[in-house]
Amino acid sequence: MLPARFAPLARVLGKHRLDAVALVPGANFRRLLARDFHQNERPLVVLVFGDGGVAAVVPNLELGSFALLDLDGDIFEWRDEEGYQKAFDAVAKRYPMRRLGVEGQRMRVFESLALAKASPGIEIIDVHRDIAAVRLHKTAREIEHLRRAIGISEEALEATLQRVRPGMSETEIEGMLVGELFAAGAEDLSFRPIVAAAENSARPHASARPDYRVKPGDVLLFDFGGRYGGMVADVTRTVFVGHCPDAARDIYATVLAANQAGRAATRAGVTAHAVDDAVQTVLEASPHARFRRHKTGHGLGLDVHEDPYIMRGNNEVLEPGMVFTIEPGLYDLSRFGVRIEDDVAVTVSGADCLTSFARDIRVVG
Amino acid sequence: MLPARFAPLARVLGKHRLDAVALVPGANFRRLLARDFHQNERPLVVLVFGDGGVAAVVPNLELGSFALLDLDGDIFEWRDEEGYQKAFDAVAKRYPMRRLGVEGQRMRVFESLALAKASPGIEIIDVHRDIAAVRLHKTAREIEHLRRAIGISEEALEATLQRVRPGMSETEIEGMLVGELFAAGAEDLSFRPIVAAAENSARPHASARPDYRVKPGDVLLFDFGGRYGGMVADVTRTVFVGHCPDAARDIYATVLAANQAGRAATRAGVTAHAVDDAVQTVLEASPHARFRRHKTGHGLGLDVHEDPYIMRGNNEVLEPGMVFTIEPGLYDLSRFGVRIEDDVAVTVSGADCLTSFARDIRVVG
Repeated sequence: MLPARFAPLARVLGKHRLDAVALVPGANFRRLLARDFHQNERPLVVLVFGDGGVAAVVPNLELGSFALLDLDGDIFEWRDEEGYQKAFDAVAKRYPMRRLGVEGQRMRVFESLALAKASPGIEIIDVHRDIAAVRLHKTAREIEHLRRAIGISEEALEATLQRVRPGMSETEIEGMLVGELFAAGAEDLSFRPIVAAAENSARPHASARPDYRVKPGDVLLFDFGGRYGGMVADVTRTVFVGHCPDAARDIYATVLAANQAGRAATRAGVTAHAVDDAVQTVLEASPHARFRRHKTGHGLGLDVHEDPYIMRGNNEVLEPGMVFTIEPGLYDLSRFGVRIEDDVAVTVSGADCLTSFARDIRVVG
Repeated sequence: MLPARFAPLARVLGKHRLDAVALVPGANFRRLLARDFHQNERPLVVLVFGDGGVAAVVPNLELGSFALLDLDGDIFEWRDEEGYQKAFDAVAKRYPMRRLGVEGQRMRVFESLALAKASPGIEIIDVHRDIAAVRLHKTAREIEHLRRAIGISEEALEATLQRVRPGMSETEIEGMLVGELFAAGAEDLSFRPIVAAAENSARPHASARPDYRVKPGDVLLFDFGGRYGGMVADVTRTVFVGHCPDAARDIYATVLAANQAGRAATRAGVTAHAVDDAVQTVLEASPHARFRRHKTGHGLGLDVHEDPYIMRGNNEVLEPGMVFTIEPGLYDLSRFGVRIEDDVAVTVSGADCLTSFARDIRVVG
């Protein structure tokens, strides 16, 4: 019988006939243990056994923080002076393992080598996707944290847009945005923001340029977010400096229609494929179809990119509590790009759109 | 004969009698290949063989960026639809390997499992520290980038200090600082800054508080930095709001004397132990010895924490081109903490102190 907090791992243990699952710091660890550690050169591994036992290898200097997890299990501590192998050996001696499931995309090789050395003949199996599935359905508390992260991000965007003036560089505007994010209460950046004007806005992973100053008629794209309670916001709005050029109006309207189609198509029971299809169909039917570049979106939570991925061919069925982005864009590489990105939570009857920042054409400066 | 850019790996290959070394995205990759990739769910691995051959497993959608590396070697691309194992199998078929050295703290388990599956019987050996040693001696270009990262950070700190006023919250001040960092040209934050006043400044990894407003007589500690050219600045200054309380003057003077002693002790040929010892001796001889909490510093470069670690017991000899922090501190947990952190490059005759922000008592607001 697994302790309650590890109940979601029962499916993983059974499906792969594992003796144990190993967890390392990261998003899955945080979801199951309510706290996280920084992944560094000192291994910290929690082992959850099929019979309900729990053991952990913990660096001595993390013992204080580890105690806050309130974990009922055997702690095998180790100190820098003696190294970590002895702790892994001691775990293996007390808890024999033959089949161990790990987060293959998160656990590092030196940790798996220590586990293998401690248990000769052990089979280490990558069950990353099955473990990460514990984060697929967000809790009410996680949704509230995400709503707050998005609220902070939208507040920072509004404050920034009020301060944008022609002649400012992209990096100056980026500086205002990140300043407003922290001032509004963000715990951290979700990722380095994209603040890109004119033709730079057509590059999907553009960096702000210190030497480009925005001017009237420029498209100005913001793709950014702040973190709160561990959850990351991811919001994109595209605005216009001084005035909206005629060339951009119809492209903007097309992207907005695709964004609306994606939100309208979202509800429990439909596939990720269907949502992307609704979005792409709008873009494909427009005179701007050649400016398409990417799928509709990705899951969002403790990680910026996680399941479900909203793309044609993904026949995963959407269920209440899943959260993802809807972020269609059109990119005329020589001129500008437009993207409008919302974060939605799936409900039985539709989508609870967590972002509420206006999507109308907005002129700033 | 290894290609010139991989020459530093000859020592690693020889020392461990390896057929090849595998590199994954991260600081070592960036140092050897001049560019980096974001480590994500799609494996990208470069294999460097002892006989000079080079092969790489590359996700199809990264081929454009990968071409910019200008790497003379065999590319084994793979697409999401078919998965990555076939590419690893094809490498192994063309390049048989029995002993493979990897970055154990950086390569993830799913990558090593794919390599092992492709070459049954292969021995995968963690040679992380030997590979990371290629970053121990900074190039002139890296030092210039670090100098610029520090210049940006110091400019941002000065602009922030000019704007601090009593009544501002720690998070407001943090917001100003990060805004000024990006505005000054930082590519990213080195890490989430520490902006901590009063008793919060005594916590080594404090977070800014939205509900604490600074007041006259407060200690205000900034530990932060911006990234430039991949290199990270790491700077700490402790200032005073309104006035410097008498209780803080002698503690400040002691920390400053320890910082000076550390800088004075730094030169090629001495050990990391000797530098920490010079610093700790000053702190221990003071009436505040009980407020000591940590060692003198850590290496700095493409990573925020790397070799050499400046601590007693580390008998590594300092050599020209090594860069590290000197950051003594004293922490009276119930009242306040003071830390003064500089970044120094080792030269033959001493230390080239890359940080130049004034260390005198500074009153702001």
